[in-house]
Amino acid sequence: MTDRPQPILKLRRLGIDTYKEAVIYMREDCHVCRAEGFEVQARVLVSLNGKSLTATLNMVRDGLLEQGEAGLSEHAWKNLDAKEGDQTHVSHPPPVHSLSYMRSKIYGNALQADQLQAIVNDIVAGRYSDIHISSFLTACAGGRLNEQEIVHLTRAMVESGERLDWGKELVVDKHCVGGLPGNRTTPIVVAIVAAHGLTMPKTSSRAITSPAGTADTMEVLAPVDLDVPAMRKVVEKENGCVVWGGSVSLSPADDLLIRVEKALDLDSEGQLVASVLSKKIAAGSSHVLIDVPVGPTAKIRSMEMAEALARYLEQTGAALGIGVRVHTSDGSQPVGRGIGPALEARDLVAVLKNNKDAPQDLRDRALDLSGHILEFSPDVKTGEGRTLATDILDSGKAWAKFQAICEAQGGMRDIPQSPYTQIIEANKGGQVTEIDNRRIARVAKLAGAPADKVAGVDLHTPVGTKTETGQPLFTVHAESPGELDYALNYLEGEDGIIKIKEE
Amino acid sequence: MTDRPQPILKLRRLGIDTYKEAVIYMREDCHVCRAEGFEVQARVLVSLNGKSLTATLNMVRDGLLEQGEAGLSEHAWKNLDAKEGDQTHVSHPPPVHSLSYMRSKIYGNALQADQLQAIVNDIVAGRYSDIHISSFLTACAGGRLNEQEIVHLTRAMVESGERLDWGKELVVDKHCVGGLPGNRTTPIVVAIVAAHGLTMPKTSSRAITSPAGTADTMEVLAPVDLDVPAMRKVVEKENGCVVWGGSVSLSPADDLLIRVEKALDLDSEGQLVASVLSKKIAAGSSHVLIDVPVGPTAKIRSMEMAEALARYLEQTGAALGIGVRVHTSDGSQPVGRGIGPALEARDLVAVLKNNKDAPQDLRDRALDLSGHILEFSPDVKTGEGRTLATDILDSGKAWAKFQAICEAQGGMRDIPQSPYTQIIEANKGGQVTEIDNRRIARVAKLAGAPADKVAGVDLHTPVGTKTETGQPLFTVHAESPGELDYALNYLEGEDGIIKIKEE
Repeated sequence: MTDRPQPILKLRRLGIDTYKEAVIYMREDCHVCRAEGFEVQARVLVSLNGKSLTATLNMVRDGLLEQGEAGLSEHAWKNLDAKEGDQTHVSHPPPVHSLSYMRSKIYGNALQADQLQAIVNDIVAGRYSDIHISSFLTACAGGRLNEQEIVHLTRAMVESGERLDWGKELVVDKHCVGGLPGNRTTPIVVAIVAAHGLTMPKTSSRAITSPAGTADTMEVLAPVDLDVPAMRKVVEKENGCVVWGGSVSLSPADDLLIRVEKALDLDSEGQLVASVLSKKIAAGSSHVLIDVPVGPTAKIRSMEMAEALARYLEQTGAALGIGVRVHTSDGSQPVGRGIGPALEARDLVAVLKNNKDAPQDLRDRALDLSGHILEFSPDVKTGEGRTLATDILDSGKAWAKFQAICEAQGGMRDIPQSPYTQIIEANKGGQVTEIDNRRIARVAKLAGAPADKVAGVDLHTPVGTKTETGQPLFTVHAESPGELDYALNYLEGEDGIIKIKEE
Repeated sequence: MTDRPQPILKLRRLGIDTYKEAVIYMREDCHVCRAEGFEVQARVLVSLNGKSLTATLNMVRDGLLEQGEAGLSEHAWKNLDAKEGDQTHVSHPPPVHSLSYMRSKIYGNALQADQLQAIVNDIVAGRYSDIHISSFLTACAGGRLNEQEIVHLTRAMVESGERLDWGKELVVDKHCVGGLPGNRTTPIVVAIVAAHGLTMPKTSSRAITSPAGTADTMEVLAPVDLDVPAMRKVVEKENGCVVWGGSVSLSPADDLLIRVEKALDLDSEGQLVASVLSKKIAAGSSHVLIDVPVGPTAKIRSMEMAEALARYLEQTGAALGIGVRVHTSDGSQPVGRGIGPALEARDLVAVLKNNKDAPQDLRDRALDLSGHILEFSPDVKTGEGRTLATDILDSGKAWAKFQAICEAQGGMRDIPQSPYTQIIEANKGGQVTEIDNRRIARVAKLAGAPADKVAGVDLHTPVGTKTETGQPLFTVHAESPGELDYALNYLEGEDGIIKIKEE
């Protein structure tokens, strides 16, 4: 009789990207599959370098892997620090006890703090497959989390990751629920607020499906890949920063939940509150302003929805010791002119420098938000924040502060110009009545944004502009002729992205 | 300006098995990803040979695919009848409207018949990812489907596939909720019932995670891969059949739902009722007997659970015009002696031939079930079914009928013998108090069951048997020395699969 075969396989990098899902690829006739009784789609514990994660099994039928080899999805490969040829140990994962709490929630029971903590910890540890996460989100949606459970869930998400402490009583932050294209107020707000002396350590995201995230736009002007110690130095020196949140591990459960929520197109109030507030509490904020654009095509469609959301945000914030103020704004139109990192950076710099041609709507929004945040400070009276913000901006102090922040983050950069552009002209005279945000964003992406910083779309005629035949409507910017072609080819097949009504 | 690039890619078979999930593999730098703006995990419409399906996008980072190529998971490859080098068209899938009904259910609204039909149709068409299916199942679990919705869901599942019509008023069927190891009554029951002249066109499943399904066991004795016309010929000639349900497309939604339910370990009553009855109605049954084994380690653990389930089954059956009778049975122990296709076939043939050493428990169960089914017939009085069934079995008519059915299905086969066996002996004297069903099933699977028909475990000492040191407890059967070793190696590391209490 031979020795019992060891469940060890040699790793081979297949380079398959499944986003955040861990997948292990094994041969159907693999001795480990036989010995362990693994079936397709089984959950398998993969251990390497003292780390381990649970992966979903995909079987490989022919020549992709040699006998004795296994492959990993890129997500699993990176999480295990795998190297070509590493020997990995595969086995049955231990049972995931928190799934019984999830089933209890499905059956309508309220969950306790420790039960929600166990669920969140297991999600962060990768023990839930997408199927489990989807079930958990669904069980909590439709108003099935009570106020106490929302507080427990938010706290559990904070506890599952790192938490920053700035050693100050007043640390302010902002968040926008359901962003609008071009609405790049954050760097302006940070500059104004920090210039007044408040602490505002801002972490922002990169684009997932849009042509630019705040981190992408800020990166045009300064480095944003700062770790926590580097971020701390900037904030100690300049009171504020705008860095990429991805290099800081705050509320790691949130990224995993949001991905599945997006696939379900499910916005549950409880999850939204826990998602927003857990990130802010983990970032060490004491006070946060939440901007809720309301409009027929925005995420929040009515004032009633906005008010209900505001109530949950404020109650949960109070329970967890963070001051929350909700500001509703007009969500019916895009903001500014540029769409794409460099073009948006140009707009926000124009506002900070008080240029005459700076987009007024972007300036107004930034001043509104800055005013509210300044009022978190005990030395600013309610109702006087906006005037103070305007003074700081108009005086040039905000621009000076922004430049100092950029220097502290690693050095301010010049905004690059795109080598290839194409003007799109009006084919008739009249008045611009509508701009299709979704399709104009697609043009910017086809032109290369956000990977190519200079790529994007520059809008020349906001809604209401009177146009003549041949007048430039917008300019497409690209880094290569091929990408410009992609965007222009798409435009050829599409009509009415900018609607003009003949008069 | 170049022509707009066509979203066409050349297919290459990668041989990756993701079970029933459609996945498309594309290069990250693929022109189609760029042009269409596809991101990792996007849902993509893949069209080929006049067919199309929605697949989840996985990106490939290095040499797996050439420029201009795409790969498909085996499920997608087969469903599209793809051939190496085929040109496939990929595009954005149309929006899935029924997802809004699913969200409505999440928010607690009852769904109408047409809404549930739209959801089921989209699931069958592959428009729901596993994430969506998980959300739908969760939204319906925990008693959130009312009686009317269960009826709608069952009907929708019937309508989504083929439906058989036998041209008879009385067409009987049976189903077991949560099977027990070795409980291979079906072929015996079909033989008895068909011998009496009732129509019983039985479709059975192959094993998914167990060492044998009824179709696997029946295949030892006769072909089971019959299509509907072939199945019809057998039933017209012999009144009954036992064929594999996989070659008949009945209630195709069920397979897709069950897979995700298993991953969630979620048994919702509504889904269970819809799953069982939709398959039976689609199979053209007018009356169905449902066997519910009740026991502490069975799927249904108490008589209260069994009674609640029975009520739902009977009510839904009545609403859909099918007679349903629920029979509860002892679910505390395995049935028969053999575990594995050939060994189980041997046991059921022994019962049909009235061999003296035939397993009595298997015979008793088959007679109970046959008796109840015979009572569906107007010419059999209530309470007299079992006596009639016993007469048919004892007279040899059932055995004759079974042989005739096997001949009609393509020819009766001899039961093969395993070339390699190993007897496992008791290491002490005493009395057998417990057999670990889960682990004894694992031994049978490691030995090669159900892929190798002859492989499995033959139990010699049911619970209650008095044993002496060295007495054979069970025999492991295998087709190759290597597989026998796998099973024996596993046994070396495990103890107490059969518990013996010293007296």
